[in-house]
Amino acid sequence: MLQPITCNNYTIHFNEELYTRLNKHIDSHFYSKIFVLVDENTHEHCLPYFLSNVQTNLEIEIIEIEAGEEHKNIETCSGVWNVLSELGADRKSLMINLGGGVVTDLGGFVASTFMRGIDFINVPTTLLAMVDASVGGKTGVDLGSLKNQIGVINVPVFVFVDTKFLNTLPSEQVRSGFAEMLKHGLIHDEKYWDKLLKTSGETNELDNLIHESIVIKNKVVMEDPKESGLRKTLNYGHTLGHAIESYFLQEPSKPTLLHGEAIAIGMILATFLSHELHSFPVNKLKTITEVFIQKYGKVQFEPTDYERIIELLKFDKKNAFGDINFVLLEDIGKTIIDVKVDNDLIIKSFEYYKNH
Amino acid sequence: MLQPITCNNYTIHFNEELYTRLNKHIDSHFYSKIFVLVDENTHEHCLPYFLSNVQTNLEIEIIEIEAGEEHKNIETCSGVWNVLSELGADRKSLMINLGGGVVTDLGGFVASTFMRGIDFINVPTTLLAMVDASVGGKTGVDLGSLKNQIGVINVPVFVFVDTKFLNTLPSEQVRSGFAEMLKHGLIHDEKYWDKLLKTSGETNELDNLIHESIVIKNKVVMEDPKESGLRKTLNYGHTLGHAIESYFLQEPSKPTLLHGEAIAIGMILATFLSHELHSFPVNKLKTITEVFIQKYGKVQFEPTDYERIIELLKFDKKNAFGDINFVLLEDIGKTIIDVKVDNDLIIKSFEYYKNH
Repeated sequence: MLQPITCNNYTIHFNEELYTRLNKHIDSHFYSKIFVLVDENTHEHCLPYFLSNVQTNLEIEIIEIEAGEEHKNIETCSGVWNVLSELGADRKSLMINLGGGVVTDLGGFVASTFMRGIDFINVPTTLLAMVDASVGGKTGVDLGSLKNQIGVINVPVFVFVDTKFLNTLPSEQVRSGFAEMLKHGLIHDEKYWDKLLKTSGETNELDNLIHESIVIKNKVVMEDPKESGLRKTLNYGHTLGHAIESYFLQEPSKPTLLHGEAIAIGMILATFLSHELHSFPVNKLKTITEVFIQKYGKVQFEPTDYERIIELLKFDKKNAFGDINFVLLEDIGKTIIDVKVDNDLIIKSFEYYKNH
Repeated sequence: MLQPITCNNYTIHFNEELYTRLNKHIDSHFYSKIFVLVDENTHEHCLPYFLSNVQTNLEIEIIEIEAGEEHKNIETCSGVWNVLSELGADRKSLMINLGGGVVTDLGGFVASTFMRGIDFINVPTTLLAMVDASVGGKTGVDLGSLKNQIGVINVPVFVFVDTKFLNTLPSEQVRSGFAEMLKHGLIHDEKYWDKLLKTSGETNELDNLIHESIVIKNKVVMEDPKESGLRKTLNYGHTLGHAIESYFLQEPSKPTLLHGEAIAIGMILATFLSHELHSFPVNKLKTITEVFIQKYGKVQFEPTDYERIIELLKFDKKNAFGDINFVLLEDIGKTIIDVKVDNDLIIKSFEYYKNH
């Protein structure tokens, strides 16, 4: 059995044990009503199974939003706030966010701001949301093409990780989430990284790797609640990865990248920069590059793209004062934060990716 | 000199001392940029004086929103978030909200959610915002006709109360704020209530009364940070007052009431209910009714209005489970919370108001 993970002010429960905890929690908390937020995909593929496990006499209302990052915005929040209000939600209502990162991030923000905050539970249904959004208390939505620009830090009362939901996902979604797990290996633990490279993907093994990934992320977050140091290491591959993701989303000629696909590129670039600036071992750079390209394929960049991606970096909310701060590696598991990198070297990293 | 008031995690400074503190704070906090949020009124009447007292080399950007409760909504927030983003606001930006409750509530919410929270300072320019919104950490906006339905609890780094701004206000705005001061007397301190009735309105005297009012509200908030008991007493007159305010706002045939005008009616009704249900002394009920009617005039209600106002009570976010909870008084300064009142008695209280 996967052990519960104690986070800052809440607990993550897994698989079998989860529904017992959920039903017990609902039973003992005198909620007035339950609202389950879904998108059209989780409505169809996850909700029936989820509801079949919930035992309560309370009324359960379903609120559906449109799937996809392009709907993770304030307009969608307004819709959900209005529906909550029309359906009679009050301060004693419970909101359950059943879905991927869009549903849990947006639902967490809606719950945290409705009547200045009601209880919410996150039930991530994608691998990405399980290993990433489940820890850290970040809620929020995008502002135009700027990711997570509007939000608050606030924790759910529980996170429930049921890995059965992964069976409902297309394989590229699972692969996307796996990129965050690879990141946890790179920034924290070379043994875990090696285990990830060797996994056959068999269910039990994957469950354990997911659990270990969440333990790593939680350890990092708990050691640095104010995000003043260690926690920045979770941004590995994300500085350029986010900018690439935003740029591809707004550029009609480019394919839309999944988050994991974008940060896979970001991690190749960051590892190249790590080699150039901090002597990251060249043999490991080679392995990492090959692992990511083999798993996530290769995306075409033109020199004009580089400039516009670098331009977008300025708007990343982590770049106070307009400086671009990178997380780099001296070796796997050995991070350096707040590294300034000049534009020429960033372009050189793109060239490295292109020519590999 | 009015002494600073220490609140939960921040301090309220007054008059002369304030600008020294502000300039010192800016000087020592390495902000990247300063944004001052105003509405068209405070832009014209308060901003020039305010800016003439600010000494800094930092860039100061002004963001103006439209004045009035009808603009205290998510659409206005979206506008401000976008302007912040376009003007290059980052995590090290400081936001100063210069205005009445709409500007400080909305600005506080915008700052608390921009990049998951940037520093903000509130500079209330109305009496209502000075004695009410300055304490308690409530930020937020309305959802349709539902007041403060969307928001978070978050404190500013400072509140600066400069009573000179009161000279820029129309007299009915000062009168509206005075209603909250009268409320602080009724729920907390009969001596303070008596002082308020005797005041000539001379500046020094008013400054001291404002200071005392903030001290009372802060005492109540500090003793009950989780809003589980004592703090509910601040809602005196607000259960019906809020509903009346919302109803008059959405009803084209009714005049728009200022907040203080609405809660003045709410306090007459609540005092009548206090007399009926908890033997509030009849002579004081008479005085209170006369004081409020003399100061705030009388509003016309039809029996059809009562029903629709009672209907609106259901949506008040403080009424968990659809129950209507009143704060009542046994005597001035002696509150009882969580009192259920049936609709017939509410209608009787409107009849009392009408026939007085």
